Amino acid sequence: MVSFRYSLQYLADYIGASIDGDADLVIEGLATLSTATAKQLSFYANKRYKQLLASTAAGCVLLSQEDAGYFSGNKLIVANPYLAYAKLTALFVQPTSTLPSIHPSAVIAADVSLGDGVTIGPHVVIESGCQIGSGVIIYAGCYLGANTIVASNTMIYANVTLYSEVIIGEDCVLHSGCIIGSDGFGFAPTVNGWQKIHQLGGVIIGNQVEIGAGTTIDRGALENTVIEDGVKIDNQVQIAHNVRLGEGTAIAAAAAIAGSTTIGKRCTIAGAVGIVGHLTIVDDVHITAMTMVTKSISTPGSYSSGVPMNQTQQWRKNAARFNQLDSMARQLKSIEK
Amino acid sequence: MVSFRYSLQYLADYIGASIDGDADLVIEGLATLSTATAKQLSFYANKRYKQLLASTAAGCVLLSQEDAGYFSGNKLIVANPYLAYAKLTALFVQPTSTLPSIHPSAVIAADVSLGDGVTIGPHVVIESGCQIGSGVIIYAGCYLGANTIVASNTMIYANVTLYSEVIIGEDCVLHSGCIIGSDGFGFAPTVNGWQKIHQLGGVIIGNQVEIGAGTTIDRGALENTVIEDGVKIDNQVQIAHNVRLGEGTAIAAAAAIAGSTTIGKRCTIAGAVGIVGHLTIVDDVHITAMTMVTKSISTPGSYSSGVPMNQTQQWRKNAARFNQLDSMARQLKSIEK
Amino acid sequence: MVSFRYSLQYLADYIGASIDGDADLVIEGLATLSTATAKQLSFYANKRYKQLLASTAAGCVLLSQEDAGYFSGNKLIVANPYLAYAKLTALFVQPTSTLPSIHPSAVIAADVSLGDGVTIGPHVVIESGCQIGSGVIIYAGCYLGANTIVASNTMIYANVTLYSEVIIGEDCVLHSGCIIGSDGFGFAPTVNGWQKIHQLGGVIIGNQVEIGAGTTIDRGALENTVIEDGVKIDNQVQIAHNVRLGEGTAIAAAAAIAGSTTIGKRCTIAGAVGIVGHLTIVDDVHITAMTMVTKSISTPGSYSSGVPMNQTQQWRKNAARFNQLDSMARQLKSIEK
Repeated sequence: MVSFRYSLQYLADYIGASIDGDADLVIEGLATLSTATAKQLSFYANKRYKQLLASTAAGCVLLSQEDAGYFSGNKLIVANPYLAYAKLTALFVQPTSTLPSIHPSAVIAADVSLGDGVTIGPHVVIESGCQIGSGVIIYAGCYLGANTIVASNTMIYANVTLYSEVIIGEDCVLHSGCIIGSDGFGFAPTVNGWQKIHQLGGVIIGNQVEIGAGTTIDRGALENTVIEDGVKIDNQVQIAHNVRLGEGTAIAAAAAIAGSTTIGKRCTIAGAVGIVGHLTIVDDVHITAMTMVTKSISTPGSYSSGVPMNQTQQWRKNAARFNQLDSMARQLKSIEK
Repeated sequence: MVSFRYSLQYLADYIGASIDGDADLVIEGLATLSTATAKQLSFYANKRYKQLLASTAAGCVLLSQEDAGYFSGNKLIVANPYLAYAKLTALFVQPTSTLPSIHPSAVIAADVSLGDGVTIGPHVVIESGCQIGSGVIIYAGCYLGANTIVASNTMIYANVTLYSEVIIGEDCVLHSGCIIGSDGFGFAPTVNGWQKIHQLGGVIIGNQVEIGAGTTIDRGALENTVIEDGVKIDNQVQIAHNVRLGEGTAIAAAAAIAGSTTIGKRCTIAGAVGIVGHLTIVDDVHITAMTMVTKSISTPGSYSSGVPMNQTQQWRKNAARFNQLDSMARQLKSIEK
Repeated sequence: MVSFRYSLQYLADYIGASIDGDADLVIEGLATLSTATAKQLSFYANKRYKQLLASTAAGCVLLSQEDAGYFSGNKLIVANPYLAYAKLTALFVQPTSTLPSIHPSAVIAADVSLGDGVTIGPHVVIESGCQIGSGVIIYAGCYLGANTIVASNTMIYANVTLYSEVIIGEDCVLHSGCIIGSDGFGFAPTVNGWQKIHQLGGVIIGNQVEIGAGTTIDRGALENTVIEDGVKIDNQVQIAHNVRLGEGTAIAAAAAIAGSTTIGKRCTIAGAVGIVGHLTIVDDVHITAMTMVTKSISTPGSYSSGVPMNQTQQWRKNAARFNQLDSMARQLKSIEK
């Protein structure tokens, strides 16, 4: 593992911070306020942790001018400490591969086009007709089906599966076990069971998209499933066929979006949300965890469903009344009269 | 990629349609009413899209006799346009492999029996005692544990994992990342923690079963987990040990079925439904999205649970009252008296 | 497949049971009361199945002294029949590999340290700096990122992905398709979209931990994600960054735990439970299936949420009233006055 050593001056320049303290101090890592040592930099961005500013052993704290008075040690002062911290993390990532190279155990069809500086790990399989952009890194065990395109500087972690005719943009990150381009769930009912509807569309993924571990994105039935630029998708999310996700939307883990639903730009979908098919959700909608979405949303804002947790014994009593709600409401009305 | 060219006559014969229009017209693809061009065939099966019949540029539309009057161009007329469209999709699938062959990087135990015309991709591993039927296609990176059986004409996409002693029927489709035969979640509590119950059963999967990407099906504890013929399972579904799914049942994405539950024939389980263990659900039951099933179902029909979405601020007020429901009901009763 | 043959005496000694019957009887397998044959041993641990004791064809039944009178055949008598059955299952597991060996197709960096008796399957990739303890078994297609540590006697099934700097304890079982060490979902909002927060922490997993198929465990943002000894995790569970799971806690399939939540010891989290981030749940908490947990839990006990299933038509009427709950409660109060 690599050791990192940056002067406070270097870090300040990297994020455009002003220094209040020793510009020559050497920082070897990032840490939270409660665990940081004198060789580590921490950040303060959440008032919940204010008291830790007095006790932290951090060599330097990244904070805003307005909070600078609460910490007596070395400071980097920025307008948005959380964003500055996010940027700094890039300086402390352990390098995972050395020189661009193509492992001899990779099986790459003869007609695949490979850009400059491509890294392809052991046991990767790239089928005929694929195009791999410059700077792409594909870790071990990935499979790319025929005619799939991966644009430049995209990183694909180990054991990812891309079916045929999938298009991935630039600067994307695909985490292990994600699967893109599998068949949408399409069957026509017949008297003898289900008739398969072959899924003839593809998947188009924009630039700067991140896709979490174990997430699945199905190919379209006739048209494409589309994920626009800057979308961030967490682990184990399910995106069904013909879904469209607008630019900059973020979807947390274990959410599931059914077929042909369109979601606007800059939405946030929290964990384990379920959204049924054929809906339209406008831009700037925020949906809280585990919400069941069965109707289109035409007004920006925050939406929720579900009932609060309780002790099981209490919950049973209240839950049993749920099936009487309609009659209770009618009773109330007749009493009012 | 292959180009397709079929005459309207050919397509009509393939699905048993009557032609109203130019039988020699060449069709090169399928598309929706809103995007189809003069070289594409579309279909009309949902009254929601009726107005598109007047404006579509499709070279031909597949529809029923009763709707034939709403479109003025070339028509293929059938009793069930959606089913006919489903059948037609098979003509427009891009071929993904050429000749049956076994890639030299595959590791296949000496005693594995391979049927005629088997295709095995790079880096596949097939352990001792497996039997692979004729016409089976196994894409790159799949793992088949000892003594597993895959019957003829089944297609297994890349990076599928079958544990030992799993039986897969004929004409199945297994999507990437699905895992069949992993241990059921069985532990006995002891004062020193959990004692593992080794899972000694297997998994038996019938014919014409489709299993989605990232779906997991556990092996039985003592008996088998059983998926009957014609079952269709979407992505990221969890099927626990000793579950039995009846013929023709379909399960949408992100549903989870706990151990030893039996589900009848021709059921539909919508997305993100959760079903607890040791239940029995009869034939022809339909469960809507995100329903929590905690009791057996003995009558066919449609079942639901959950509460509707609302703006978060409104939802909070109502949700807070949920824990007062029982006392509200008691109040109402005492007022009535 | 191996045939098993154990005398009743051998089995009694293995679990510390007393024999009431023929100590020389040969047992060839385990089965449930309803399916066991004269050569199989069954167990009785659930009063629900009491009537089966009279009709079972089992060669021997494992039960408690208090129930011994209900079965007239050969008996093994123990204090805790379910636990004794759990222990016995270990005697009937089909061996899956023969001699420890390293498959020539595995790609193992030169500086990886391998303990004694390690088994490494085909197409496994182990990056630089990894340490593999003695007796570890790694099935085909697994990927271990740089500097990852796997302690002795841990079993890793096919197609598992461990990112770099992950630490796995002794005697663990990792099921196929699980992914450990993927990036936590961390992004800072900016006017130009999401700024990636590189995830600089690792994952530390204790001893005797079992992790189910398709489960994902993210690496920490700055500190580590920690799974303590004896934790059992089922399939398709999502554990976000910086989560800590206490010793002996068990989590059923399809549950999802958001970032920085701490769960105590000996908790049980049932299937499809969702737990939001930054919560603290104390020891000995039990959460029933599909519960939505949005608040910390400071008292041991059982907790639930959700509404009961109903026929869809009835459910619709009641669910529609949910959004009137607050006004109903107010009405009630004003009537009471």
